Formats: sequence, C-alpha cells, structure tokens
Amino acid sequence: MRLRNKKWAGPWLEAHADLVINQQTATDLKGKWETVFPVAQPIQIEVGTGKGRFIIGMAKKYPNINFIGMEIQEAAVAVAGRMADEDEAALPNLKFIYGDGAGVDTYFEKGEVSKVFLNFSDPWPKSRHESRRLTYKSFLAGYQAILPDGGELEFKTDNRGLFEYSLYSFNQFGMNFLPDGISLDLHADADKMIDNVETEYEEKFSELGFPIYKFVGSFK
Amino acid sequence: MRLRNKKWAGPWLEAHADLVINQQTATDLKGKWETVFPVAQPIQIEVGTGKGRFIIGMAKKYPNINFIGMEIQEAAVAVAGRMADEDEAALPNLKFIYGDGAGVDTYFEKGEVSKVFLNFSDPWPKSRHESRRLTYKSFLAGYQAILPDGGELEFKTDNRGLFEYSLYSFNQFGMNFLPDGISLDLHADADKMIDNVETEYEEKFSELGFPIYKFVGSFK
Repeated sequence: MRLRNKKWAGPWLEAHADLVINQQTATDLKGKWETVFPVAQPIQIEVGTGKGRFIIGMAKKYPNINFIGMEIQEAAVAVAGRMADEDEAALPNLKFIYGDGAGVDTYFEKGEVSKVFLNFSDPWPKSRHESRRLTYKSFLAGYQAILPDGGELEFKTDNRGLFEYSLYSFNQFGMNFLPDGISLDLHADADKMIDNVETEYEEKFSELGFPIYKFVGSFK
Repeated sequence: MRLRNKKWAGPWLEAHADLVINQQTATDLKGKWETVFPVAQPIQIEVGTGKGRFIIGMAKKYPNINFIGMEIQEAAVAVAGRMADEDEAALPNLKFIYGDGAGVDTYFEKGEVSKVFLNFSDPWPKSRHESRRLTYKSFLAGYQAILPDGGELEFKTDNRGLFEYSLYSFNQFGMNFLPDGISLDLHADADKMIDNVETEYEEKFSELGFPIYKFVGSFK
C-alpha cells in the first residue's frame, strides 16, 4: 500500500544514511556487505519491506543473522528505519536499502545473501503490470542471481490472485526453483506457525478470517 | 470416501459389462476405444469417478466428446453405472472402467485420451500413503503417457492438504507439466465457473463455505 509522502522522510533518511542505505552506496557495497555489520554472519533480505515490522521482528528474533530490508517507497522505508532506530532493542544486525527490488543483483553478489523474503507484496492486479509483481520471472532470476545454490525464497501473502499468479510463475521457472513447503492457510497449520513472524497485513487479514498463503522454495 | 459394499453390485456389473468395462476388457481395448462408442470423437477420462455425478454431467453437457469414468471401488462404480443407465437421457458417449488409475497406460495408447480429470480424489493424508495419491509422480507419468503433447489435466479438490501436496508434486514434475490455470477459490471466480460441472463433494463443501481448489495444467 502506498503511504502518503512524509515531509520529514527525506531529511531523516539523509541523517541516517548508515542505517538506511541509498542505492548508490548499496551498489558500491556489492560483495562487501559484511563490512556494514559488526558481526560477519549470514545475510537475509526482505524485498518490499514496507514499514518494516517483519524484518525488525526477525532481527530481534535471530541475532545471529544479519538482515536487510529493501523498500522503494521513501515514506515507508523512512518509517521502517525510524521504527528500527527508536526500538528499545539495539539492532546492530539490521539495515535497510532505499532501493528497487529489480536491482538486487546490482547490490549483491552471488551467494552474498542466504535467503530472500517477500511478504504481502503489492499484487499489481492488472495484467499489464505483471512485470512489476515481485514474483515475476525477472525478479525470480534476480533472487537466483544473489542466492547460493539451494538458497531459499520465502513468500507470504493474503492476496489470492497474487498467490495464484505466483504459483504459476514459480512453476514456469521450472526445475530451477522447487518448492520446499506450501501452505494455503498458514494460520491453520499449527506446526508451520511455530516460527512465524507476522507482518501488519498478516495480523490484520488473518484476524478477519482470510487465509494466509505461504510458499517456500529453493533455487538451484 | 469408501462406500459400503453393495450386494447387487457384482451381478449388476456382470449384466452391464458393455457400460462398465472390466480391467481385462479395458486392457484388450487399448488403441481401440473408438470402437466402443457409436461416434468417433475425442475421449476424456475421469480417474476416480466415484458415484459418477461429474462424468454423467459432462456426458450430458458435451455430446461431442466421449467420456470414460474410471473407478476402482466396486460399489461406487456400480452406483455410477446404474445412475448413468437409469438416467432419462441416453448417454451413448459415456462408459466406465472398473479399474485402477495406476493402470491408465495399460488401457490407453499415447494420444488416445485428450484430457484427464481428477475430482475430489482421496487425499490419503498419511505420508506413507503418498504414492496412492492420484497426483503422485507415478500417476502424473501415467497421464502423460496417454495424453497427446499439450494434453490437459484438470484437478479439483476441497482438500487443502491434498492440493498443497499436488502443487508440490506438479512443480517437481518440472517443465513436463505446466499450469494453464490455478484457482484457490473456484466458486469466487465467476468467470471460471461458467463451464463448471459440480461433483457431489463440490456442492456440499462449497455450500459450507470451504474454498474449492482447481489446477489445470498441460503436459508436453
């Protein structure tokens, strides 16, 4: 969902360029992401991180993983950055990129990222916008380009049309991307919920009784 | 669902061997199925036809297609055969096979069948029964062996676990089986319902508000 522009966002982002990294710096960091975190440990990214609730939750839950949330909307990435910055927990294992999911392979080298998350991505329901969906083949190729062999993509959404489309797109990607787990009603699967970190959307829509769809697959 | 045995089933089937064909005859008919129908026209089959409501509905709706319902349970195939036999409409374009879905390629030659339907198949939820599910890879290989290049498999179920499993299995089948259409709530998709022929289960479960899942894919 597009947020209203926020006047404070631009200045705030400039003042916190070490936490929310801009596209130019992100490009320069290709192959050197280890250097931005205090501890060298696996890096997992969320493409389309929105207001950041998921990635902040993950960073708290898994201190032994470094997380990067990517977001193309200035207002959203500023809200996410500020929430992380103002959180009571210090989160040295969390950064953001104010940048485009289409550019993942300009920011990361093959194998530099160990896992990619997509959560409640914009469904772009019109067919002429198919290529903007984060599960479109060009995006899948991007994730494949930065993940190691066997690296995972984890995708959650409440949007039925987007999930149907994504199943189609994953299948079309053929033997280069195979499923490890599929749930058509995540919150009904107690054993799949144990490690579930919710996003704002997920909480809202699952409370309304809508199924949450999830797909985990690995690239080869 | 397993029906109770019916005493009349055995004798009835013997007396209607031209309508409900046994395994031996079906094997002998391989490559010659045209001869059992008055008109030579495309043949479509349903594997696991149950009490036959779907295939009888299809035979009525599409007189220019020959249909064959396969069913391994004696009681069910007898009920289906009797329903077809007693139907007010004469249905010269409908036959049944009292036989096993695992044997499709012993009954049909490559290209002899133009489309395969699976409807509300037994979910066999225990992992040790995986190989009995009609979307298990060996069954998919069977459908591929009898369909022409581009031939379609159409699969509907209300069972979430079976559909999740099947998405997994279809995806594993790789580029040999690609989706043409996926619906995670068929009855909510008005445009996909236009030609929908319901089964007993489908009517029951959709009325209860459960989503009906559908997958259409084609083999190459």
